[in-house]
Amino acid sequence: MSDKVAVLVAGSWGTALANVLAANELDVHIWSRSPEQVLEINEQHTNSRYLPGMALSSHLKATADMKEAVTGAAAVLIAAPSSAMREVCRQLKTCIEEDSIVIHATKGFETESLKRMSTVISEEISRNESSIVVLSGPSHAEEVIRQCPTTVVVASGDQKAAETAQDLFMNAYFRVYTNRDMIGVELAGALKNIIALGAGMSDGLGFGDNAKAALLTRGLAEISRIGVEMGANPLTFAGLAGVGDLVVTATSKHSRNWRAGFMLGEGKPLDEVLSSMGMVVEGIRTTKAAYAFSEKFGVQMPIANQLYHVLFEQRDPRNAVEALMGRNPKTEMETMPLQTWEQWHT
Amino acid sequence: MSDKVAVLVAGSWGTALANVLAANELDVHIWSRSPEQVLEINEQHTNSRYLPGMALSSHLKATADMKEAVTGAAAVLIAAPSSAMREVCRQLKTCIEEDSIVIHATKGFETESLKRMSTVISEEISRNESSIVVLSGPSHAEEVIRQCPTTVVVASGDQKAAETAQDLFMNAYFRVYTNRDMIGVELAGALKNIIALGAGMSDGLGFGDNAKAALLTRGLAEISRIGVEMGANPLTFAGLAGVGDLVVTATSKHSRNWRAGFMLGEGKPLDEVLSSMGMVVEGIRTTKAAYAFSEKFGVQMPIANQLYHVLFEQRDPRNAVEALMGRNPKTEMETMPLQTWEQWHT
Repeated sequence: MSDKVAVLVAGSWGTALANVLAANELDVHIWSRSPEQVLEINEQHTNSRYLPGMALSSHLKATADMKEAVTGAAAVLIAAPSSAMREVCRQLKTCIEEDSIVIHATKGFETESLKRMSTVISEEISRNESSIVVLSGPSHAEEVIRQCPTTVVVASGDQKAAETAQDLFMNAYFRVYTNRDMIGVELAGALKNIIALGAGMSDGLGFGDNAKAALLTRGLAEISRIGVEMGANPLTFAGLAGVGDLVVTATSKHSRNWRAGFMLGEGKPLDEVLSSMGMVVEGIRTTKAAYAFSEKFGVQMPIANQLYHVLFEQRDPRNAVEALMGRNPKTEMETMPLQTWEQWHT
Repeated sequence: MSDKVAVLVAGSWGTALANVLAANELDVHIWSRSPEQVLEINEQHTNSRYLPGMALSSHLKATADMKEAVTGAAAVLIAAPSSAMREVCRQLKTCIEEDSIVIHATKGFETESLKRMSTVISEEISRNESSIVVLSGPSHAEEVIRQCPTTVVVASGDQKAAETAQDLFMNAYFRVYTNRDMIGVELAGALKNIIALGAGMSDGLGFGDNAKAALLTRGLAEISRIGVEMGANPLTFAGLAGVGDLVVTATSKHSRNWRAGFMLGEGKPLDEVLSSMGMVVEGIRTTKAAYAFSEKFGVQMPIANQLYHVLFEQRDPRNAVEALMGRNPKTEMETMPLQTWEQWHT
């Protein structure tokens, strides 16, 4: 296998992952549209727009020519924003080699279609969706650059592809687990933003640790429930892409989702929250997606639904909490069909 | 059914739960050995030793006579420290009515025998273990007294007993879920303290959010793994007694387990940590228990084992983390036998 790896694009997460690969002495070529960024990475070994003040490996090569980056690469890692995924893949289709494995590290759904990222990729590059690998987990890019101990999961329908990805990335500070459940890993990474938003809202309302833990746990239960309906293993949601990422996102004041939720909990209207954030708040878009999934699959998602009412129908957050607490008594486990379990345990 | 409920004993958690029951207009009798405490609860409606500055319901009655508390009670709630459980139950045996349901809210194992609390109770009061209900979940007592939104789980082999407990406790600020998996709920509540200790140690070493999330998630995976071996449903560990309680314990600087771990991470020796805490650190005892379970059942618990080396064999915490990160590549899911799933999904 060639030791060349291509990385698209040079945002904070793509750059941090490229830096891990470079630390592993692979021949890493990161692609960026911006000639200034290419020059800066090659000459200063920094990416000041996305990772200000952080030094990158001097072995990391950047290029503005995607064909140059991907030609002869054993693997192509895509870490484009979800909104740019389709377009990047359209370009990739013209130059990707047949035997390069494709790994992506992008969270979220395509805006209008609500498709998962691996679906978008497979449609554009004409590959079987199950051959694609997704990388996810609790991982601030800055900490990865600083070589703080970090764990992630790589999931694919193709166990060999997942193991290749594991092998490429794994080192003393970056530990990689495999998982067969690509759908679960993608859904967990996207849907957990809703819960982070809810946790921020609970904090903004001045509720305590008990309420926040309740939101996290019962939120996890409902995203697992919809996940199972969409083909995922419920235990994936208890793993790195689920619980792990959720803990990082929902308990960090640096999380945009948590902050947006906090302001809503304080009583600020949505448009004021959005304009003060100045960037996309993934959890708000994802709440819409979850609401649609909940309707489509007939699965109860009480927290996502209440958040939807708060975000888009001016419901008072306090009423939303009252509605959640006042639901009929339930069991903690929703019974899942046995074939779900058989599917994951044969 | 009588509306009388007995609560043993008047610590912070027993008192907070008694207060919920009193808010639900039940006839609540809390038992304490201390005549001063009985007098204070009955006359001042406070319990200043355990819940300083907090006002209790004036309907809550205290007594130093256990027989008076439990006679005619529809339910007896035991919230004794784990170290006192056997002795309290020995006394309870002499006065409990045959048709009172027994609920306990105590986390941890009996020190020498490593028995779960429901085992200790059933041995002493001569009842079938599966008839006992355990109540657990993310719940600071102070927040429950302040009526902050809180969720807990009640688990029992006897679904009707669990539903009775749900019915007794549930109200607008205290939401109760049932679960059939008493073993899982008891194990999760006890074993999560190990992970809280590890999370504190990671913070004390100056590692970041990624490392802490890794510890929480992989810690959860290993306590689920031993739990399944001991008869639990793995999804219970993703529920309120597992993830929920873990988030509260491992991210709170008020947690003794987290604090002890933090000091160990900073390089303080165990005896100094213990003497500065001045009280029992449950996670330290539980690490011993997990080490024993791991050996007995032949189940890998890498995090608990490294903590054991740090606590009792002077291993440097930094080396422990290196050993964890440097293990062979793994899949995220350990395969569990299908009969485990069948057991919980029929």
